[in-house]
Amino acid sequence: MPELRKDPILGRWVIIAGERAKRHKDFAHAPAALPEGVCPFCAGNEHMSAPEIFSLKDEAGNWQLRVVPSISPFMESGRDFWKKGRGPYDLRSASGSHEMVIETPQHVANMADLDDHAIKDVLAVYRGRMLELEKTVYLKSVLVFKNYGRAAGAGLNHSCSQLIATPVNFKRVKEELEGARFYYETHERCVFCDIVKQELETSARIVLDEQGFAAFVPFAPRFPFEVWVVPKKHGADFYKSDDAALDGLAGLLKKLLSKIKAALGDPAYNYVIHTAPFRRPQAGYWSTIEDDFHWHMEIIPHLDQPAGFEWGTGFYICPAMPEEAAKILRDA
Amino acid sequence: MPELRKDPILGRWVIIAGERAKRHKDFAHAPAALPEGVCPFCAGNEHMSAPEIFSLKDEAGNWQLRVVPSISPFMESGRDFWKKGRGPYDLRSASGSHEMVIETPQHVANMADLDDHAIKDVLAVYRGRMLELEKTVYLKSVLVFKNYGRAAGAGLNHSCSQLIATPVNFKRVKEELEGARFYYETHERCVFCDIVKQELETSARIVLDEQGFAAFVPFAPRFPFEVWVVPKKHGADFYKSDDAALDGLAGLLKKLLSKIKAALGDPAYNYVIHTAPFRRPQAGYWSTIEDDFHWHMEIIPHLDQPAGFEWGTGFYICPAMPEEAAKILRDA
Repeated sequence: MPELRKDPILGRWVIIAGERAKRHKDFAHAPAALPEGVCPFCAGNEHMSAPEIFSLKDEAGNWQLRVVPSISPFMESGRDFWKKGRGPYDLRSASGSHEMVIETPQHVANMADLDDHAIKDVLAVYRGRMLELEKTVYLKSVLVFKNYGRAAGAGLNHSCSQLIATPVNFKRVKEELEGARFYYETHERCVFCDIVKQELETSARIVLDEQGFAAFVPFAPRFPFEVWVVPKKHGADFYKSDDAALDGLAGLLKKLLSKIKAALGDPAYNYVIHTAPFRRPQAGYWSTIEDDFHWHMEIIPHLDQPAGFEWGTGFYICPAMPEEAAKILRDA
Repeated sequence: MPELRKDPILGRWVIIAGERAKRHKDFAHAPAALPEGVCPFCAGNEHMSAPEIFSLKDEAGNWQLRVVPSISPFMESGRDFWKKGRGPYDLRSASGSHEMVIETPQHVANMADLDDHAIKDVLAVYRGRMLELEKTVYLKSVLVFKNYGRAAGAGLNHSCSQLIATPVNFKRVKEELEGARFYYETHERCVFCDIVKQELETSARIVLDEQGFAAFVPFAPRFPFEVWVVPKKHGADFYKSDDAALDGLAGLLKKLLSKIKAALGDPAYNYVIHTAPFRRPQAGYWSTIEDDFHWHMEIIPHLDQPAGFEWGTGFYICPAMPEEAAKILRDA
């Protein structure tokens, strides 16, 4: 029978479809690939991007990874930052940044097909760009995310990810911060640390446990085959990860994305990195983030789509049992 | 240039794409229609549904509208209601109800193609079913929603809507309740009443203003061409609407859905009705809902899809200017 499960951080209820859950072969997702055209991210087409912000080159001087501004940015850098009202409403300039990380010079679509070393470079570049963006005083938060495949919102079949930094804190990260803080006030422990411990003890939802990271299907996922990757060592800020941690994460990510590709038929997916906001007060409301928040990744394969119920309630119906999903990925 | 706009109720920021906004003809949405097969909702195929809960018949005894239980319910009625823990996690039985409203015996897909009278019947049945569901003491909230077209999660090309009642309050409605309460504490006025007043005064985002209802594109919409329908008369509960109000809403809805169909090329859409929870305390936290909350409908055409940024932040990027979207719908 279906059951309601509560996300212990956000307090959001999820309907788990129970015995009516689809078998993973029943998800008839559309192919991830988009129609091909001239790819502006391939080596040789650099003129199709705005001037590069950063690149990594090999010994021969060929770039292996580039960071460029988005050509249709949602947040704009180098503009005046303003706040204003219009009648009773609040507006702000979309001052911030919107960068694309082109992860390979080859026309490879899925990060699962890059090697560990290339994935490590991508993660190290996220760290470097965050450290750089943190210097702009009006920027409060940055999101690293990846859209792979058409159903995940990708525009090209070329492995890339994005960083968007904004002068406001993200709603969802704020909810996590508040949930984590509430838990910390009661328990004096980090809720993410406790969840990792619980998942490793029960092991039913673990997909991978190695190199300092636990990858598991959460107890109350929004989406079928959603996976969280959480460092076992507590830390609020992704950008404070050392090289050893990024090496470990790259190795795990390569395996995990390969499992998702193999088990689910190369579905479209998004991933996001939730890290603490850049600037936080020394006292008062957000001064305990260092102790109570814990950075992590969320990976969302797109096998299904939200509908009226999800848009109307903010709840989700997950048509796959988390424990079965974890087993399928573990065995892939 | 893009700008950030804040939803005055939820405090959620939305990135409005500004001059980079797509023209409405640029949204290349997939057709709403699904592949045809035997339709279990058509007259003559009643045996394909579970036993009916309610029906409206014409003088000749033929049904014009039926309510049946969902054949793959996400919430189940008549089961024991339980709460339990599993390690640190919370679970609840999915005790509740999941009903389908079959809006016509004919194989008509879009509610826009029903007449005012049939739409009024649908609305009156929502009211009747809510009044009935309200009697089950463990049910806290009900959502009325419609999935029209493939991209909105529909399974059939037959006009229908759904009611799901749950033993927990919806996350999104709770956020609205909290936002509305906060506003009321400051202003001693209903935030929805104030928004309607503001929208009617500035008129730039109004699509329709008639029969006691205002239909407008909100200041900070999540989706391009999103429209809210708000009764001008304050009221927290949809199910307390009288016949005259439902007549007015049916007439407006017919026009509005026809405009969306005509202007945007018959896109898939969802609509939801946000109404106050069934049970609320006489004192304390939720005792002022009667005054501060205001039921309404939200209509979401699916021209675009959320991607990693939206899933990661809980913010939205709206690639259409609300004022232009309203004008296009107004003129359709």
